[in-house]
Amino acid sequence: MDRNIYLNTMDADEALKLFLDRSGFRNEIEEVLVIQSLGRVTADAVFAVCSSPNFNASAMDGIAVRAKDTYEASEVNPVILKKGQYKHVDTGDPITEPYDAVIMIEDVVEVGEGDLKIISPVFPWQNVRPIGEDIVANEMIIPSNHMINPVDIGALLAGGIITVKVYKKPTVGIIPTGTEIVEPGEKLEIGDIIESNSRMLEGLVVEYGGEPNRYAIVPDDYELLKTAIKNAVKENDIVVINAGSSAGSEDYTASLVKDMGELIVHGIATKPGKPVVLGFIENKPVMGVPGYPVSAWVVFEIFAKPLIKRWAGMPVKQEKKVEAVLSKRLVSSLKNKEFVRVKLGKVNDNLIATPLDRGAGITMSLVRADGILEVPQSCEGYEAGQKVNIKLLKDLEDIQNTIVSIGSHDLIMDIIGNMIHRKNSAFNLSSSHVGSMAGLMALKRGEAHMAPIHLLDEKTGTYNIEYIKRYLGNMDIVLIKGVKRIQGIMTKKNNPKGIKSIEDLARDDIQFVNRQKGAGTRILTDYLLKNAGIDTEKINGYRREMTTHMAVAAAIASGSADVGVGVYSAAKAMDLDFIPIGEEEYDFAIPAAFLNEIMIKLFIDVITSMEFKDYLEQMGGYGTENTGQIIKCT
Amino acid sequence: MDRNIYLNTMDADEALKLFLDRSGFRNEIEEVLVIQSLGRVTADAVFAVCSSPNFNASAMDGIAVRAKDTYEASEVNPVILKKGQYKHVDTGDPITEPYDAVIMIEDVVEVGEGDLKIISPVFPWQNVRPIGEDIVANEMIIPSNHMINPVDIGALLAGGIITVKVYKKPTVGIIPTGTEIVEPGEKLEIGDIIESNSRMLEGLVVEYGGEPNRYAIVPDDYELLKTAIKNAVKENDIVVINAGSSAGSEDYTASLVKDMGELIVHGIATKPGKPVVLGFIENKPVMGVPGYPVSAWVVFEIFAKPLIKRWAGMPVKQEKKVEAVLSKRLVSSLKNKEFVRVKLGKVNDNLIATPLDRGAGITMSLVRADGILEVPQSCEGYEAGQKVNIKLLKDLEDIQNTIVSIGSHDLIMDIIGNMIHRKNSAFNLSSSHVGSMAGLMALKRGEAHMAPIHLLDEKTGTYNIEYIKRYLGNMDIVLIKGVKRIQGIMTKKNNPKGIKSIEDLARDDIQFVNRQKGAGTRILTDYLLKNAGIDTEKINGYRREMTTHMAVAAAIASGSADVGVGVYSAAKAMDLDFIPIGEEEYDFAIPAAFLNEIMIKLFIDVITSMEFKDYLEQMGGYGTENTGQIIKCT
Repeated sequence: MDRNIYLNTMDADEALKLFLDRSGFRNEIEEVLVIQSLGRVTADAVFAVCSSPNFNASAMDGIAVRAKDTYEASEVNPVILKKGQYKHVDTGDPITEPYDAVIMIEDVVEVGEGDLKIISPVFPWQNVRPIGEDIVANEMIIPSNHMINPVDIGALLAGGIITVKVYKKPTVGIIPTGTEIVEPGEKLEIGDIIESNSRMLEGLVVEYGGEPNRYAIVPDDYELLKTAIKNAVKENDIVVINAGSSAGSEDYTASLVKDMGELIVHGIATKPGKPVVLGFIENKPVMGVPGYPVSAWVVFEIFAKPLIKRWAGMPVKQEKKVEAVLSKRLVSSLKNKEFVRVKLGKVNDNLIATPLDRGAGITMSLVRADGILEVPQSCEGYEAGQKVNIKLLKDLEDIQNTIVSIGSHDLIMDIIGNMIHRKNSAFNLSSSHVGSMAGLMALKRGEAHMAPIHLLDEKTGTYNIEYIKRYLGNMDIVLIKGVKRIQGIMTKKNNPKGIKSIEDLARDDIQFVNRQKGAGTRILTDYLLKNAGIDTEKINGYRREMTTHMAVAAAIASGSADVGVGVYSAAKAMDLDFIPIGEEEYDFAIPAAFLNEIMIKLFIDVITSMEFKDYLEQMGGYGTENTGQIIKCT
Repeated sequence: MDRNIYLNTMDADEALKLFLDRSGFRNEIEEVLVIQSLGRVTADAVFAVCSSPNFNASAMDGIAVRAKDTYEASEVNPVILKKGQYKHVDTGDPITEPYDAVIMIEDVVEVGEGDLKIISPVFPWQNVRPIGEDIVANEMIIPSNHMINPVDIGALLAGGIITVKVYKKPTVGIIPTGTEIVEPGEKLEIGDIIESNSRMLEGLVVEYGGEPNRYAIVPDDYELLKTAIKNAVKENDIVVINAGSSAGSEDYTASLVKDMGELIVHGIATKPGKPVVLGFIENKPVMGVPGYPVSAWVVFEIFAKPLIKRWAGMPVKQEKKVEAVLSKRLVSSLKNKEFVRVKLGKVNDNLIATPLDRGAGITMSLVRADGILEVPQSCEGYEAGQKVNIKLLKDLEDIQNTIVSIGSHDLIMDIIGNMIHRKNSAFNLSSSHVGSMAGLMALKRGEAHMAPIHLLDEKTGTYNIEYIKRYLGNMDIVLIKGVKRIQGIMTKKNNPKGIKSIEDLARDDIQFVNRQKGAGTRILTDYLLKNAGIDTEKINGYRREMTTHMAVAAAIASGSADVGVGVYSAAKAMDLDFIPIGEEEYDFAIPAAFLNEIMIKLFIDVITSMEFKDYLEQMGGYGTENTGQIIKCT
């Protein structure tokens, strides 16, 4: 086994400099029709070849006259113009000898036999657009390195320009590799991964101003891959291989680049993104991009974006950054520069950044991210409440129009978010799943607009209100009633281990999967276990914690656990068996002051709509008798 | 003659409401391949159909083991794993029975005959990506009304989605009309206008999210136009006719819409943009858009943009506005809401708005505009120095990186601007042509970074410095030496009227065209006329003022004047004869404090470069002996 375990971990900035310096500037130019030039970048300044208008033109509908024939006209002494002394003109008509001015039609009175009466004079060239009024031949219309917009197209054509020299879009060959990956739509066997990265990279290449060429999947085979790379290098300006860029037994990218050309970087000190290959084959840049989607994205942003933009002549813009307050502590390793995806939300005029899942394989953390927090290699992380700089991935306006919900997870949060966005696409709902208690704490710190909670008070047997009184007693909080939902024990389809009640969790042959501390479901579980007199130490997997109902359901469906506690909709979604253990109240705690905000009103509109209730009916497992009622708590 | 002189002048907002209400929502949906969905807008929320990963997968390269086989391992008591107790796995490989955890390869030591030594335990499911870690089947990947980006494409494919329902792009038929307009590239006769509007409108339709279909030019003929409209209505969702929307003798748009369907608006109270036609034929929206390019643009922004975006399901964003200080007085009519194009520049932390040419035919005012100042119908205008709200057309970042030059005009300003942008595409030069004196006043008011000037002091016979001392004596101003340039008398090619010197300007048979007051060329002209003892009252056209050399040259080339004073390069560009009357110094006055700004350094780099000097050499008429020298003035 030829296993090269150790990658270098070069500084990303150093690697980028090496890569760009060696790549140089290769700004190829092509000539395109102006009418097809939208969004292209000029390689040269463009100068008008003719004037617009290229003749003296009437500026209005009226009559062309000799100005000197009109000098005597006044209300008292009108002038009568005879046939031959004037000519009817429409806007844009040429004004030629002997005429040198235009009188607007509204100021002209027909007095019979072609005679026209006027009562005020015009001076020479009045109401005439002189030649070149808009564009003068030889003047610059647009500069070089300028992205052509619709108005430019109009001006270029008016200036007599038919074709324009623009930078050729660099072509980027993208080779997906891996014996385990399959094309979307093919039947998935265990171990198969749907090939999706290359399509994300295609889209990014387009956004950077390049032209992607995606090749068929190449299995992990040195010779096949060599042939594919050779071909792609011949057909493109830049080649991207995804993945095989690490140092595993079937990771051939680095050695192929070395064998076929020049390997300059293998491994950078970033997380995610570490296993990068950068090199040149036949003097063309070749990149080995890691297989985890987030790693691939990070590596592409660091290396492909500046190179493609440079070669495409695209204007380099500063990255948009904002300052935000970090909502929870973030520890980062000194080994790497880390790119942490964050959700942003504006609550009480504060921009709050909440880190998302940091795994390199979590595509959804990128889909949901509003920004990136770059933690330098020299930094061990940040404390909660610290101000940090966030690189924006979305418009700040969209972020400001987002309801920030932090708390317990339920599938209905997706539904509500979708309905809000559909009702008014200016607004969004961002839902972070940290459990009910952590949601209340986020409200307390002013980091969220609302906290979805389902917290059972053991003494009173009631839900939510007691917790708000206890923990947020000094704030003016109301409860918007949400849904009643059925919690239950989830087991594999047909319940192969014959689980009947909460007591079975302590059985030797049972693997349990738990929810995290502070989650309403966890509190319910612990309450039921305590009532049943079960020592949690005896439960296999009690310490294995998931943060959502769906993650628990997925663990059971995959066989990594036999049983867990969760809501009916999750069990149904993953096709599991479900044994009800009780009905609970899933409500929204919210500072009363927010009730006046448009987006909160929209939220209430949505949850009280028939459409929403019908939808839940269809899903099953929910009760909506009180949904939307507002209860004062404190 | 069937001339309907009077348009209504409906309020634009009222007209828009009528138009949109009657148009309604016509959100057609189509299903596209996810791999072709970049930039499309989802018509429904998209939920994952499978989990990713859809099996338990190794999270690293290493060995799959049973966790319980490793519990005893420590540095003191290593555990030896025999063949069958482990399996080599790469990242992403499935972890199946009996294995339930992974040890990373770096922590494994081969000790011969397939035996592996480990020195620390792993717990169950450690280093394993559980099924659904990234995406859980049935979870929402993206909501409805969401524009699909590259990362979304990756996530959708990973979630098992192959096709996605998106809003169909509304098709917009664009019919250019007019007997006088010709296709770009055709030979221009007097009276011909190059058809450019439809291509600008095409680009705007694309930017709004629609699909343009541009038809061939239709001459001003009722029946031909009727056929063209009938056809376009059949083939498109929306139809745009450009122009014939006014009330001239050949403006058929309004009457055609009336005859073929329903005319709801003819004329709105805006400037530019007044002659608008809005109606419906076979229940499809039909717009008559005016012929002047800026009017067409304004009308399209008001009416086409909201309709197309609505039907395309595009997110409606708030317009980006900034507050700026108006650099000069602006008078506006109470008859109309006016859309004034402005240049913006950041000088001394103030954003300064300078109105551009307000003519509806001046495409270049749109090309050069950074923003739009909307003057309400009820407002008579604004004073210089007043704060106004500007709707941004460009990125604020680009505006902030722009050198604001206000003063005298010379062709070299275009050249310098282009060279700056080319050297570093983050920076721009914006050059407003108001004459030398007005440039100095703009510097005084802190509205410009620099003023290009060429002001002859009659007493000393020197250029520029005396004026700076006189008018900006209390400021710390330096002069960056620009170019020596030859001023002269410009006449038509071959000088048909035999003009020899400045004295000829007073001849009866001569039409002169002048520069505006405060322009260096005007001061020079007046100085020479005074020396020659000529009464300016006797000069035909003395009061006809142009603001640039090129405009003067164009007036002569077009025959609307016989003679003017200007620089050699302008005469050469318009192929005029040129009689030198003196060499002058065209320099840049600039507050000393700005010399440290990066963009001013870039400016000096450019004007002192060999490339720049070579370019001027080639153009002729310039001397560059002192170019770039910095002289303290005050």
